[in-house]
Amino acid sequence: MWVEISPKLEQTFSKENSNLPTNNILKEVRNRYELFKTPELQNLARIESSLLKGARKYFDDKGFIEVIVPHITRATGACENISTMFSVDFFGERSYLAQTGQLYLETLTPFLKKVCCVGPSFRAEPDADERHLTEFPLLEIEFEGDFKQLMAHIEGIIFSMISTAWKERREELEFFGIDKNYISKFKPPYRKVTYTEALNYLTDGYKLNWGDDIKSMHEKHLLNAFGQEPFFLTHWPKPIKFFNMRANDHDSSIVNSADLILPFGGEAVGAAERESTYEALLERLKQSNMLRMLEERGGSIEDFRWYLDFYKKYGGTLHSGCGIGMNRVTQALIASNDIRACTVFPMNRVSLL
Amino acid sequence: MWVEISPKLEQTFSKENSNLPTNNILKEVRNRYELFKTPELQNLARIESSLLKGARKYFDDKGFIEVIVPHITRATGACENISTMFSVDFFGERSYLAQTGQLYLETLTPFLKKVCCVGPSFRAEPDADERHLTEFPLLEIEFEGDFKQLMAHIEGIIFSMISTAWKERREELEFFGIDKNYISKFKPPYRKVTYTEALNYLTDGYKLNWGDDIKSMHEKHLLNAFGQEPFFLTHWPKPIKFFNMRANDHDSSIVNSADLILPFGGEAVGAAERESTYEALLERLKQSNMLRMLEERGGSIEDFRWYLDFYKKYGGTLHSGCGIGMNRVTQALIASNDIRACTVFPMNRVSLL
Repeated sequence: MWVEISPKLEQTFSKENSNLPTNNILKEVRNRYELFKTPELQNLARIESSLLKGARKYFDDKGFIEVIVPHITRATGACENISTMFSVDFFGERSYLAQTGQLYLETLTPFLKKVCCVGPSFRAEPDADERHLTEFPLLEIEFEGDFKQLMAHIEGIIFSMISTAWKERREELEFFGIDKNYISKFKPPYRKVTYTEALNYLTDGYKLNWGDDIKSMHEKHLLNAFGQEPFFLTHWPKPIKFFNMRANDHDSSIVNSADLILPFGGEAVGAAERESTYEALLERLKQSNMLRMLEERGGSIEDFRWYLDFYKKYGGTLHSGCGIGMNRVTQALIASNDIRACTVFPMNRVSLL
Repeated sequence: MWVEISPKLEQTFSKENSNLPTNNILKEVRNRYELFKTPELQNLARIESSLLKGARKYFDDKGFIEVIVPHITRATGACENISTMFSVDFFGERSYLAQTGQLYLETLTPFLKKVCCVGPSFRAEPDADERHLTEFPLLEIEFEGDFKQLMAHIEGIIFSMISTAWKERREELEFFGIDKNYISKFKPPYRKVTYTEALNYLTDGYKLNWGDDIKSMHEKHLLNAFGQEPFFLTHWPKPIKFFNMRANDHDSSIVNSADLILPFGGEAVGAAERESTYEALLERLKQSNMLRMLEERGGSIEDFRWYLDFYKKYGGTLHSGCGIGMNRVTQALIASNDIRACTVFPMNRVSLL
């Protein structure tokens, strides 16, 4: 299933640039423009374009309003990990490149009901490997509604992306060895497994204690257990998730969250119901690792003041949302273990042009 | 034609936040979320969403492939003015927030023929006023084709944006006082005026010498002369335009460029045929103001080496492209002189959240 290049192309290519690997051509990120002449990258670009179109088709069909959110922010642009935010000198003020537009979308949700944004998410990940990019397109939605509706939206978006790509780029996908049978894996509904249930599948070398994070190797093990089909991992332990994910009404040790795990790509979507009262958000923020990290870097809870103030005035209605890492979906679609091979311009610490 | 708020809303609003102006409510950029409860901003968000959709509809109908380009770049992400690039510490390397994805799109054009991207353009503009944003969505296309096709695409994109908004958001536009008669201004074709011809219209206090830049006040004067309808300003003096705009075959002192000037918004689109040979690009880059600015900041022509190398291998085919500042189109559509009033999250040096 892996992207193989034809012997003819391999020959042409290695003559011109002997430093490039002779297989897995799309993994090469330096001087990316050298690869644009290959059918591999041209096909990838066409597929990526259709995946975006498929997502937007769903957003539009369901009445989501697309909003342009800021990408230079204070700490409120952080996903969780303040230490992987790039710093920008904003006229002498400390600012960051946003990892998410979520908190900004949330401020429009009470009024527009369903909103979305598509834009770059920046992560200062020092590893230049098959799993990390410093910049990638994140597709985000936020809407008034609950956990069940949230998972249905995610299923709908992923299926719209994959089926639009299959409809428009069948030849390109067949080039990568993808067939109709493989595509059918992505037809909803997807299996839902709670975090706690998932631990039962993680035995021997994969064993975790309740409260531990589920990492890439565990996701792979679970994908094997579930027939390499997409599944939701739901109801994670509260301490290891984003501060505004809503606590479960029956068990306050877990949150109403769902990660979507895709074959090859692994975690492609992070999603949750949100806390929506000032008091709950303040309490959760105070308890969060994120705030501790922010304080270590000279920030404080004041960086979130405007967000908290917003909920003082406009909170109280249940809303939910998610962020979809587009290249993880591409990975799943073209069955590749390497995110660099699934991204037209894969950005990491060695690819800057 | 200016955005007026209803007396009722004005009253509600000024009670809660006495610092806000009681008219032109959408100009306020601090704590923008405070305005999301107003019909002004809700209507604006819906209109913006439809403008984006209209542009993408055109791109898709005409076979443009949407590409995700990097937003952290070296100097090749500069539009012209290196001094208005935000610096980012990229793992200890000097890097910038991109102002344009143009050079990246160009590397795909020989292979995909028609490409586009939609993303944030960053400008470190210190002025926080009615004309400057530090971040805004730029819609860019690049394709194999000439100047005439370029202007036809621009007319097509603008008309698709405006007519999609009118079709989907008529009520919201009527709220801002926009009617069908005003919308009809945007029906192509648009008037084409050369830079040199335009100077003849600029008399008295507006007088310019050949080679001077045409600024906002001059655009306004020309808009008056041309009935407040969109027009292209074409064939600008070479020294004041981007280094890769293609010199005219009959008069090498001018380039085959076109700025689209819209009522209220002013310059909303910058467009040109591109130089496409290594030799011409190298020569033009060496002569450019941009390179001098780059050198003053410790950079060099080596920052453009990969781009020049690309043209050594793949140059030679005529291609053209443009960048459309989306909020300038919104300005034209809702007839507003203030870009802050036409942007959901207007980013400038005082609005950081």
